[in-house]
Amino acid sequence: MFEAAELGHKVSKKDYSAEVPALREALLDAQQELAERSTCPVILLIGGVDGAGKGETVNTLNFWMDPRGIRTNAMGAPTEEERLRPRMWRFWRALPPRGSIGIFFGSWYTAPIVQRAHERIDQAAFDQQMDEIVRFERMLADEGALILKFWFHLSRKQQRKRFEKLAKDPSTRWRVSDADRENAKRYDRFRAISEHALRLTSQAWAPWIVVEGSDRRYRELVTGRTLLEALRERLRMDAGPAVTSTPAAPPAPARVDERTVLGELDLSLSLPRSEYRSRLEDLQGRLSRLSRHKKFRRRAVVAVFEGNDAAGKGGAIRRVTAALDARFYRLVPIAAPSEEERAQPFLWRFWRHIPPLGHFTIFDRSWYGRVLVERVEGLCPEYDWRRAYGEINDFEAEMDRHGILVVKFWLAVSQEEQFRRFRERGELGYKRFKITDEDWRNRERWDDYAAAVCDMVDRTSTEIAPWTLVEAEDKYWARVRVLETLCDRIEAGLS
Amino acid sequence: MFEAAELGHKVSKKDYSAEVPALREALLDAQQELAERSTCPVILLIGGVDGAGKGETVNTLNFWMDPRGIRTNAMGAPTEEERLRPRMWRFWRALPPRGSIGIFFGSWYTAPIVQRAHERIDQAAFDQQMDEIVRFERMLADEGALILKFWFHLSRKQQRKRFEKLAKDPSTRWRVSDADRENAKRYDRFRAISEHALRLTSQAWAPWIVVEGSDRRYRELVTGRTLLEALRERLRMDAGPAVTSTPAAPPAPARVDERTVLGELDLSLSLPRSEYRSRLEDLQGRLSRLSRHKKFRRRAVVAVFEGNDAAGKGGAIRRVTAALDARFYRLVPIAAPSEEERAQPFLWRFWRHIPPLGHFTIFDRSWYGRVLVERVEGLCPEYDWRRAYGEINDFEAEMDRHGILVVKFWLAVSQEEQFRRFRERGELGYKRFKITDEDWRNRERWDDYAAAVCDMVDRTSTEIAPWTLVEAEDKYWARVRVLETLCDRIEAGLS
Repeated sequence: MFEAAELGHKVSKKDYSAEVPALREALLDAQQELAERSTCPVILLIGGVDGAGKGETVNTLNFWMDPRGIRTNAMGAPTEEERLRPRMWRFWRALPPRGSIGIFFGSWYTAPIVQRAHERIDQAAFDQQMDEIVRFERMLADEGALILKFWFHLSRKQQRKRFEKLAKDPSTRWRVSDADRENAKRYDRFRAISEHALRLTSQAWAPWIVVEGSDRRYRELVTGRTLLEALRERLRMDAGPAVTSTPAAPPAPARVDERTVLGELDLSLSLPRSEYRSRLEDLQGRLSRLSRHKKFRRRAVVAVFEGNDAAGKGGAIRRVTAALDARFYRLVPIAAPSEEERAQPFLWRFWRHIPPLGHFTIFDRSWYGRVLVERVEGLCPEYDWRRAYGEINDFEAEMDRHGILVVKFWLAVSQEEQFRRFRERGELGYKRFKITDEDWRNRERWDDYAAAVCDMVDRTSTEIAPWTLVEAEDKYWARVRVLETLCDRIEAGLS
Repeated sequence: MFEAAELGHKVSKKDYSAEVPALREALLDAQQELAERSTCPVILLIGGVDGAGKGETVNTLNFWMDPRGIRTNAMGAPTEEERLRPRMWRFWRALPPRGSIGIFFGSWYTAPIVQRAHERIDQAAFDQQMDEIVRFERMLADEGALILKFWFHLSRKQQRKRFEKLAKDPSTRWRVSDADRENAKRYDRFRAISEHALRLTSQAWAPWIVVEGSDRRYRELVTGRTLLEALRERLRMDAGPAVTSTPAAPPAPARVDERTVLGELDLSLSLPRSEYRSRLEDLQGRLSRLSRHKKFRRRAVVAVFEGNDAAGKGGAIRRVTAALDARFYRLVPIAAPSEEERAQPFLWRFWRHIPPLGHFTIFDRSWYGRVLVERVEGLCPEYDWRRAYGEINDFEAEMDRHGILVVKFWLAVSQEEQFRRFRERGELGYKRFKITDEDWRNRERWDDYAAAVCDMVDRTSTEIAPWTLVEAEDKYWARVRVLETLCDRIEAGLS
């Protein structure tokens, strides 16, 4: 979920200066229209990692817009008056009226996350609070509020660098509190809890927008643009005929630069044949031993293979299955659904193939077809593929709870390499059957697919079921990477 | 929540026989249309108290309709094959395809409720499972399923009688298992847990329909009619233009007889003046002591007074406040919302008045206005008052979690008595200001209001915040009943 916010996004001073004046003007216009129409309140939640620039961004928003229409609520520890009331009382008091913007710097998420990080509440109590929050935000949305939740993220390394920088300068040293330093020590724990919270509470009517926090200009532009687009969209909606249902689709965060998780892959990575041979043998032996481990009887594996056409999924899968006992795995190739399957919810045909404990199921293509091919080719309505992200996360969480390890691979090749392989298949007789008209057509949609893959990783790469993006330009490299990842995940799962 | 299902609803043999043939034919027609169109699957959950006729009703439905289009899943303990898969796997397997009806006799609710009753899971873990269920059912609804969840209820007394009857007859004795008898001992615990589960999971797209289970004919007619209406409504919807959002409003269960919680009140109850005097004094003393109790510093009271116009709310409230120290209570009369309040979510103006611990807030009319006057007078859209039930339950649960006792009174008078009081006020000079044109007009809506009150009690009378319906024809009786209830609730809350 945080993958795309660890790429080192940056905006140059020049680009920033060129864009800000128009952005400010547009924000002011939208804010004025909001105030005049007074149809809805706007609720901005600012959360995230310490040191990711939450405070600065709040200041910038106040500076860019008309502060008279903004109420900023810095929610620290509750006061005596607040402690005597139910938890949510202080937030109800601070809600912005229609026509104005309320910024919550520290929100209803803060206390549960901190309490969980310090083990003062258990997982179930935490999830219960997240559920209450979902209901609360749903109510706000039903009451007409526009809710945007920004999460400013830093990688562990970025956070350390940031603190060092602030601490060195006497004028900013005060901003690094002892509590910040303490929390930094718990970085991994906070990250896991936050990700879990974001996954449970990112709803169409109150989406989380994860923003990389290390570069001030990038952070501000993404926040400003996303806010502007959401405001405009809402004002347009409110001007239309009345609708009495909440929105179904979370808006996509604004794209400010060209950096994506796919673009960052180093496709030049490769392995010489001799090294491949020996590593393959080692890894297959390791996988075989793991699959026969006593503890594996209480575990299972669901491995998902997705990737560009001709990226080598089949070859990678064969190197995996070669290490497994045929009685304990099933390979499920996914094509178009059958008549029987079409008469059921879309996840039904995948539920059928969930392995019992002690077994593997390997999916050659999977439920992600809904947010990839079905999305890009317009085979299902936007409402349906949008809600699929959450449903998929629930599905995988259910498997995880049962002890099933969900391991997901995206095999990536360049457009050039794909073309080369297509041509090769066309020439080589025995592989010809594998290339179809559709393959050629899909190439035309390359950019649409790339965007869909990035969204998929953003929304479904979770602590419990992370995506592994595999550089597959070199097949040897890809196969070794797949086997190694699989072994590492199983090993971690058995300990 | 179960109040209306403990009234002893009955249908005579004659009425039953007169209705069934047409109902069966209509059900068969609807079923055939469902199969032909194949637009959606129908999922019927049958749950409830042991001995409330769940099995019989399932058999009747199969008998009334075409069993070829029905798949009945009796979900007992999971098999070995099922235990090796995630919890929901067995239910996914059993989902009906589009065009057919799946009856789940025992469902995804059974295991969590039983586990909670035997304390094998804690409250938070239970709530977490309920949340997963909400998400699962939401997904099914989004996939087009029509979901109806029937809950067959028996009062404790009815259940005992029913078991005795079954056990006496050798041909039915086998149906009373030892586990049933064990569970019967835990009746109160099961009731509280089920009510909590129903409250958390009754959603517009998958509503619970509570049916009194003691009379076979009543039970079958309510189930059959509710199913028929829901089927027809859905077939009508599916024939119209495509809508890509889930329904907002849970259907009301079919009304088969005239018995209601309001109608069952014995308005002839009264107290002679002398007894009233002495009991009033005792109770006020008791309330005063309770409010000054050391433990009350960690508690608070929110008392809600609703009732027919001229039912004597003001008088009852004055008898309460007379016992309290003015520094520790606030009386909040609720009229039309102010400009400021209208710019906020509807619950906002009530949140403002939540007492700190150690204090009382008394609401003369309340948030229930939304599901009473605003509903009946058409002052807010149906979508809004329908969703208010759930929001109100969440609101009251939040207060409860904080230690606030929520005590709710509905003061009921007959139409004749109300008229007498109106006339009296019209004649008596100093009370004349209290009667308005609106009061006269409201009388015309008597039946609409009565229906709204019954729905309100059905949906918001919960273990944590039950409604007390007060017979208010005699003011003395009503005041004593109010004070007594209040004292009992506080006493229970302090121990």
